[in-house]
Amino acid sequence: MKISQIQVFVCSPGRNFVTVKVTTEDGTTGIGDATLNGREMAVVSCLEQHIAPCLIGKDAQNIEDIWQYLYKGVYWRKGPVNMAAIAGIDMALWDIKGKVAGLPVHQLLGGKSRTGVTLYAHASGECIDSTLSKAEHLINQGFRAVRLQTAIPGLTATYGVLGDKKDYFELQGNRPLPPEEPWCTQKYFSVVVELFRQARKRLGEEVHLLHDVHSRLTPIEAARLGKLLEPYHLYFLEDAAIAENQNSYQLIRHHTTVPLAIGETYNTLWECKDLIQHQWIDFIRTAATHAGGLTGLRKITEFANVFDVRIAPHGAPDLSPVCFATHLHINIWAPNFGIQEFVGLDNPQLNEVFTHDIRVENGMALPSDLPGLGISFNEDAAKKHPYKRSYLPVSRLEDGTMWHW
Amino acid sequence: MKISQIQVFVCSPGRNFVTVKVTTEDGTTGIGDATLNGREMAVVSCLEQHIAPCLIGKDAQNIEDIWQYLYKGVYWRKGPVNMAAIAGIDMALWDIKGKVAGLPVHQLLGGKSRTGVTLYAHASGECIDSTLSKAEHLINQGFRAVRLQTAIPGLTATYGVLGDKKDYFELQGNRPLPPEEPWCTQKYFSVVVELFRQARKRLGEEVHLLHDVHSRLTPIEAARLGKLLEPYHLYFLEDAAIAENQNSYQLIRHHTTVPLAIGETYNTLWECKDLIQHQWIDFIRTAATHAGGLTGLRKITEFANVFDVRIAPHGAPDLSPVCFATHLHINIWAPNFGIQEFVGLDNPQLNEVFTHDIRVENGMALPSDLPGLGISFNEDAAKKHPYKRSYLPVSRLEDGTMWHW
Amino acid sequence: MKISQIQVFVCSPGRNFVTVKVTTEDGTTGIGDATLNGREMAVVSCLEQHIAPCLIGKDAQNIEDIWQYLYKGVYWRKGPVNMAAIAGIDMALWDIKGKVAGLPVHQLLGGKSRTGVTLYAHASGECIDSTLSKAEHLINQGFRAVRLQTAIPGLTATYGVLGDKKDYFELQGNRPLPPEEPWCTQKYFSVVVELFRQARKRLGEEVHLLHDVHSRLTPIEAARLGKLLEPYHLYFLEDAAIAENQNSYQLIRHHTTVPLAIGETYNTLWECKDLIQHQWIDFIRTAATHAGGLTGLRKITEFANVFDVRIAPHGAPDLSPVCFATHLHINIWAPNFGIQEFVGLDNPQLNEVFTHDIRVENGMALPSDLPGLGISFNEDAAKKHPYKRSYLPVSRLEDGTMWHW
Amino acid sequence: MKISQIQVFVCSPGRNFVTVKVTTEDGTTGIGDATLNGREMAVVSCLEQHIAPCLIGKDAQNIEDIWQYLYKGVYWRKGPVNMAAIAGIDMALWDIKGKVAGLPVHQLLGGKSRTGVTLYAHASGECIDSTLSKAEHLINQGFRAVRLQTAIPGLTATYGVLGDKKDYFELQGNRPLPPEEPWCTQKYFSVVVELFRQARKRLGEEVHLLHDVHSRLTPIEAARLGKLLEPYHLYFLEDAAIAENQNSYQLIRHHTTVPLAIGETYNTLWECKDLIQHQWIDFIRTAATHAGGLTGLRKITEFANVFDVRIAPHGAPDLSPVCFATHLHINIWAPNFGIQEFVGLDNPQLNEVFTHDIRVENGMALPSDLPGLGISFNEDAAKKHPYKRSYLPVSRLEDGTMWHW
Repeated sequence: MKISQIQVFVCSPGRNFVTVKVTTEDGTTGIGDATLNGREMAVVSCLEQHIAPCLIGKDAQNIEDIWQYLYKGVYWRKGPVNMAAIAGIDMALWDIKGKVAGLPVHQLLGGKSRTGVTLYAHASGECIDSTLSKAEHLINQGFRAVRLQTAIPGLTATYGVLGDKKDYFELQGNRPLPPEEPWCTQKYFSVVVELFRQARKRLGEEVHLLHDVHSRLTPIEAARLGKLLEPYHLYFLEDAAIAENQNSYQLIRHHTTVPLAIGETYNTLWECKDLIQHQWIDFIRTAATHAGGLTGLRKITEFANVFDVRIAPHGAPDLSPVCFATHLHINIWAPNFGIQEFVGLDNPQLNEVFTHDIRVENGMALPSDLPGLGISFNEDAAKKHPYKRSYLPVSRLEDGTMWHW
Repeated sequence: MKISQIQVFVCSPGRNFVTVKVTTEDGTTGIGDATLNGREMAVVSCLEQHIAPCLIGKDAQNIEDIWQYLYKGVYWRKGPVNMAAIAGIDMALWDIKGKVAGLPVHQLLGGKSRTGVTLYAHASGECIDSTLSKAEHLINQGFRAVRLQTAIPGLTATYGVLGDKKDYFELQGNRPLPPEEPWCTQKYFSVVVELFRQARKRLGEEVHLLHDVHSRLTPIEAARLGKLLEPYHLYFLEDAAIAENQNSYQLIRHHTTVPLAIGETYNTLWECKDLIQHQWIDFIRTAATHAGGLTGLRKITEFANVFDVRIAPHGAPDLSPVCFATHLHINIWAPNFGIQEFVGLDNPQLNEVFTHDIRVENGMALPSDLPGLGISFNEDAAKKHPYKRSYLPVSRLEDGTMWHW
Repeated sequence: MKISQIQVFVCSPGRNFVTVKVTTEDGTTGIGDATLNGREMAVVSCLEQHIAPCLIGKDAQNIEDIWQYLYKGVYWRKGPVNMAAIAGIDMALWDIKGKVAGLPVHQLLGGKSRTGVTLYAHASGECIDSTLSKAEHLINQGFRAVRLQTAIPGLTATYGVLGDKKDYFELQGNRPLPPEEPWCTQKYFSVVVELFRQARKRLGEEVHLLHDVHSRLTPIEAARLGKLLEPYHLYFLEDAAIAENQNSYQLIRHHTTVPLAIGETYNTLWECKDLIQHQWIDFIRTAATHAGGLTGLRKITEFANVFDVRIAPHGAPDLSPVCFATHLHINIWAPNFGIQEFVGLDNPQLNEVFTHDIRVENGMALPSDLPGLGISFNEDAAKKHPYKRSYLPVSRLEDGTMWHW
Repeated sequence: MKISQIQVFVCSPGRNFVTVKVTTEDGTTGIGDATLNGREMAVVSCLEQHIAPCLIGKDAQNIEDIWQYLYKGVYWRKGPVNMAAIAGIDMALWDIKGKVAGLPVHQLLGGKSRTGVTLYAHASGECIDSTLSKAEHLINQGFRAVRLQTAIPGLTATYGVLGDKKDYFELQGNRPLPPEEPWCTQKYFSVVVELFRQARKRLGEEVHLLHDVHSRLTPIEAARLGKLLEPYHLYFLEDAAIAENQNSYQLIRHHTTVPLAIGETYNTLWECKDLIQHQWIDFIRTAATHAGGLTGLRKITEFANVFDVRIAPHGAPDLSPVCFATHLHINIWAPNFGIQEFVGLDNPQLNEVFTHDIRVENGMALPSDLPGLGISFNEDAAKKHPYKRSYLPVSRLEDGTMWHW
């Protein structure tokens, strides 16, 4: 069952997505997500010019060998561009494998371990009150876990806060150059603890609350925040400090029992091996698209399970529905699944391009039971939404120092 | 002194090279190397489509800020594609800085710390005898350090052995698909220790001998090799095991006093922090082109110096002369310089495209004393040598298992 | 560009300063600060009698080699006298390098990484109320960071409190013998926590507050203080325990998330390697003058950056404006700059001797854009202010036990 | 018993020595050694201009308080200049204390713990044969421990080898500028192991053999040397790698059971605390003159004793006989005394200036039983031998890189 064609599509139905389509000699096709936010075209080149030619003629059934061929076989391993490219191929091969078997991918992984996949939704607002109103709305919709982010008074923009934009697509899909946003730790502290104090008062003790620091704090500041948030027992505190220095999490861990989550920028196990092995974190948030696909994420999941670390895959809008579908297959199977980030699937442009039967009800999602990943890519619809270069913001301290975004 | 234009050139005067040219409003230009062997076009896209647009109008003088903007400012840090792209920009900015100052780049770093840069050359052959003949030839030319690689009997190809090719350009510059090469640890051991036993007998005790395992061994096999080679006191044993698992080097280190070198596939300090910090290695071989340019390599160099780890920058033909020039500026300055890998600079096609006044005599190299990096890129000549896709081989065990190349 | 003359000047325009002037054969001159508070004449002898003779005829461009010559080349490395002497030479050589390049020194380091250098000012008083009045005055002047020290009731003198003296010059510049000052930890605790409780109430949550314990506490007392101060979220707590025993900071760190700063008495990286490497501190406060100059401080800065430790250079009046100018060049460049201590630059005697165009506005400082360090030394004016021996106090417990000053 | 006068004398009866004389109001005098090789005049200034004025009027009996006053009381602690200055004062105060008590200093420490102090002598030569002849000569004189250093073929000078000079005074006492000496690890290894192989063959198994690497090796090279020397069971291998990086000794220790000694450049316990605490070394070689006198060395001795580390005080000619006398008092008392380095005491110029009754017989030394240190300083004789600036060499690799001396 030889691979006969590999195609790469870039479209922008709200956000830029890189979609890989693998076709075998018998005409079976599979699709995968290879989106790398703000570096999309590098992945496209990597796939089209370097990776695809080597795979033509290889047996699509030998997914592990192809994964190792692309990872271990090459000189340049690792890195976001490379691992996203591998991910696109790998997901497409699992899609094909499922179609060949006539089974949804989670059945190939070992079947269902739970009735549905718990999601956490995003609530944000220009002030604490509006943030909590948004949270109440989500809870009323059935969500049992909500991430809270609120605008920081005195800063012109705050990560995770939509402002007057209706969704992330409107917020982030159309920035021809990266805006520069200010950061001030003092101002952040002035509001973040109060947000959770009020949240517990208003939303009760039972709902799961989460928060994403997005790497803005130094390790000791993160430790301080963790301590201050303990009374409000977060489900997890995300990206409390930068991702590279794993030892920083030992420091944060020492000072607080707030559960810690990180991982959306990791591309391999190597970047979180210490974190997991030493149990410095509780949730690993790596996405299939950024870590070598289903094969890559399964390896991380199995490793994390040894150390009581649960998976909580990244689910921001920079991942296409193909990645979300893949996550659902992994989530419904993984013994150590925790929670899945969720920013909505009901964008009409998006649905025009990516067709699927994923159900979201009462804050839970159910993967497709169709063979393969259970999602299809409409090439014609995609053409209507051509790639447009867009950037995430960069972050600077108030004195102009480049800071972590 | 604003950046007004960033151009990216791909040419193949023997090997593919990605060259970055930065121009400022006053017309000053600088060049940098962004070559990523086998992934060249991904770097080109990254630079042209994502990075270059953000830099137009930025002050070319603020190299550190631009480096941090490209590293810390973005969501996707690290990885070979990204760090090679940063490297191309960074070298070009240092080239401009030197021209503005009217000083060669090594003067900006702190001047010369030695009279010249010691090189090690490559000797390889189809058998031990021919390998040692080649080594003798190099020693007679004045080289005081030689890397020995010899063909492994029973394998159809061996890393680092040129065979009937006259140089690496002929060997590696023209492979439209990656060849698959076999690996067998038993067969390797059957010849590698004997190679060095004979080498010491024939070449004497004083010449520096080096060897590159190129990641083919497991950690405990590497430890065994280190012990067996101790009587022949190598200058260093390179890439004794794979690069990702830093803890493996603790294991190897535990068993042997053979000096250990690694680093040509690292793109940031984070990948070698444990290796350096715990003094598990003696030489860090990271290249400026692959680790964020002069700024990136300087950071690694200073860090390594604290722990008695010396730099021995990668010098294979997959780095353009612009990188070699940059290395010479760093090497002539760095307090902890060890040795520079060298595979020759006298290819006529290469010299047509890259013009410089680097002198190589008696196994030593001298950086240019011209302002900046002291090397220029001939755009017209480059056009005569268009990019052609080429691959390194991949490696498999004799039973077909994908192995480390 | 050979060094032809090295001169050492000692003057006391308010405080004793040791200034080094290096002249090259072509008449270029550079100046450096080699002041060592209370040990000035030992540095002068070291420079004039031992170091200067060795440097005549050496190439002023090879700063790193000269630094290593003076550090690594000699038998007696390290120590305050030696490293201050090296610092004086090193700064002067960077001053020359900048003049040769026609660029301010921060441009040689990599340019500007921020719009200005944030300063913290000193507020002290005989009681909490007067301390906070002084702080309000500074905040009104534009300072966004203030160090608070208040007189300890029941002690005849308190470190960092000016009393009836108008500035540190009047306080410290004229003590022919060291006064003995009492210390009592109980009395200190009776006021220090209250100081910060009132400060936050009166000054608000946003201004950065700092405090200097000046090594008076045992490690476990320092841990206690750190915990007690947590509600007032200091920018940093300085010198919480003595500087020699790095492991004490592991103990302090274990108990509190108060950010920790130390380093003004360190002369090399070796004295803070464990502190930085284990992330036991957040700010390293070593001064260029005491740690081998710009070259020495740059090495520490780069090392600290790996571990999320920021620099906050010492800025007490025992450092001449030449050191302050050097710090500004480093601070405006360093990716991991935090904050700069500042005790004023507007003393008329001082300005007569040291001429510069450093601007201080709204709690920020801007380095000179002149070539080199951008500061000049007026030899004639210096002669009007001859050296006078002066001492810092020593500290004793109330039972007479010698204590840490 | 107040201190009424402190005088500092510099003389050069072969080598420069700094001698401190303390006089009390009742006319009692004591002397101490404050010699700091190559930095003598910095110590003189430190003593005369900064330290002495503070001590006039203090009670000479309170040695510990004065030691803490000079160490803990000041801002600038540590460092060779400061600790040598403290040493000069401290020895003189112990000399006075002994005179007041009418007892030799070792009686004040706790009396004699052995019958005599075992010495090791220096044997060096231009070739192995002449080195071993010298060793035989020393053994015939009664020495039971000999340090072997031999000239390295191919290098113009080798540390520890006298060449045509009759003693160290002739070799080192008269160098107006530091000579630069080459270093080559390969050439060193070519002779050093052979030296000890032949030594054991010729000198037998019983004599103690020692060797001083003098910091020329990297840690892993030192480990290699240790392993290679194991068959010749050295008493200790000295200064196998540089002194600053204590962790390097963990690495060396891991690979070899050769006993390790270091310490002559340490000035406080802080520089060897890890080495001793982790038992990475076997002998601590710090000298009283360089580590704050008898008080300072006693503190190190007591600490080392806890961890089975023995003292082996430095005994090179850069320490005056006053230091040697002090060492003998400590050595005869210390429960954990190992061995004392010895380069002879019979220089006529030296004996003219320093008068004592130390006996050296059969490789053993006996301290004086006179009150105090039992050594006197002839001021008139000293005047005949004025200070002359002299330097130790510096060391460079063959490519010009500054290396460790």
